[in-house]
Amino acid sequence: MVDLWVRERFLDRFEQGYRVSDVLHLSRSEFQEISIVETEALGRMLLLDGMIMTTERDEFIYHELITHIPLLAHPNPRRVLVIGGGDGGTIREVLKHPTVEKAVLCEIDGDVIDVCRKYLPSIAGKLDDPRVETVVRDGAAYIAEQENSFDAILIDSTDPIGPGEKLFTESFYRSVLAALRENGVMACQSESPIAVPEECRRINRLLRAVFPVVQVYTACVPTYPGGQWTWTFCSRDLRPLEGINDSVADKLAESCKYYNRQVHQAVFALPNNVKALFTPDAAEVRA
Amino acid sequence: MVDLWVRERFLDRFEQGYRVSDVLHLSRSEFQEISIVETEALGRMLLLDGMIMTTERDEFIYHELITHIPLLAHPNPRRVLVIGGGDGGTIREVLKHPTVEKAVLCEIDGDVIDVCRKYLPSIAGKLDDPRVETVVRDGAAYIAEQENSFDAILIDSTDPIGPGEKLFTESFYRSVLAALRENGVMACQSESPIAVPEECRRINRLLRAVFPVVQVYTACVPTYPGGQWTWTFCSRDLRPLEGINDSVADKLAESCKYYNRQVHQAVFALPNNVKALFTPDAAEVRA
Repeated sequence: MVDLWVRERFLDRFEQGYRVSDVLHLSRSEFQEISIVETEALGRMLLLDGMIMTTERDEFIYHELITHIPLLAHPNPRRVLVIGGGDGGTIREVLKHPTVEKAVLCEIDGDVIDVCRKYLPSIAGKLDDPRVETVVRDGAAYIAEQENSFDAILIDSTDPIGPGEKLFTESFYRSVLAALRENGVMACQSESPIAVPEECRRINRLLRAVFPVVQVYTACVPTYPGGQWTWTFCSRDLRPLEGINDSVADKLAESCKYYNRQVHQAVFALPNNVKALFTPDAAEVRA
Repeated sequence: MVDLWVRERFLDRFEQGYRVSDVLHLSRSEFQEISIVETEALGRMLLLDGMIMTTERDEFIYHELITHIPLLAHPNPRRVLVIGGGDGGTIREVLKHPTVEKAVLCEIDGDVIDVCRKYLPSIAGKLDDPRVETVVRDGAAYIAEQENSFDAILIDSTDPIGPGEKLFTESFYRSVLAALRENGVMACQSESPIAVPEECRRINRLLRAVFPVVQVYTACVPTYPGGQWTWTFCSRDLRPLEGINDSVADKLAESCKYYNRQVHQAVFALPNNVKALFTPDAAEVRA
């Protein structure tokens, strides 16, 4: 048998590899290289520019957490925007919330959507739901035109390099805030405190400069460098651990592989090393 | 610069690699191959038979969690036994508890202790504490001779292959129970629900056959396959979330990089996929 592996190298000092039993798709879009491989360990895997984005076996962790934490903090999320997330996993989770009337997916690279529809049906399969509107466009440009328009915005971006870079800037976050309705909530992926602690810290500072409420949460995503991953919940005033409707959360958990009410609380319990990253230093306190 | 990497291959379908800047030690003991390498990503790394055991940068997660969860559940832990754990990291954490009078390290491979003393002083440095007694012996044989002797037993083993295999059997767990004093508590590492779900399930069944109280807890250990790791707390009647002395826990947390009281609660919040692993199936319920 051919000894075929896909490897992701990180900061030139760490790599992970997965044995590949089949290569299903390799292409280059206007923005990036798109690959789908079949791995023995984790099923089908999507890579963009060689970086692992999602796999059939572990995608539920990321997609459930970026979606259900903010949506359950909102009393009545009706209009939801997902920026990035062309694999459709976050949209699938959004649609589990019965209050949602409209879910907009704004993905810069239409080829990613097409490839995922074809090869990752368990992830992208809900993109045909009538409540979904797909916009193939730069997320930063799209959101700059939205005002007071969404109850929840989920920033399901790649890392802050390449096409995803502009989704990690203060001006982008200000547009997100302006695009939120009065009780609006936001969540974004905010990188690994183990692999890139300074990046985590930088993102946190930017978010705190823009949003009144900023709360980091954490869990383990096996395929992301460092394992330990973070997301950040932001809002004008709603808090992610208050006002959760227990029966709504319990009902939702029945359709989830990861999420439950205990997990909702637990992801906000940050270990000392992660907490320390986000403690303002003396200079900031003085400022 | 030479392109030197250490790689760990898991089940022949996943591997992780770390760039190596220096190889500090390579030897073969009576039991296994012992290696210490300097990595750019995580500092010095101990490998046994090529499997990553611990690294300077992420070791605190594992060592704090295997130690503080059970010891804080005990009102007055005075005599503690660590089985395995020749790197000394668990002993270092045990000694942070001021009630501890005696900490016995029972490690089968004396060479591991010697190598870690020499190359991993930040982990093994407390093995010279006067409260520590080091026993170089098979843990299963040692514990079979102990009765009503320890307030806490921490099973800091390798995986259930090679020298560690006999530390994952029902007869071993019965010896552990017999070696515990009346209020005794036990914790063991219990493998990854992502990488080896069936192994997790098997260990859980064995523990439930022996201990009245069995509670799994979880966190992310970046260098272990699957990232998401579990430990299991066991006892005759004490429970790991009850009777924790808040001021003792807060004081302890000041000396920890990971542990705090919120984390103590959070690690027991199991995601649905992990909970499902440990739910007795219909056949067991009937039995």
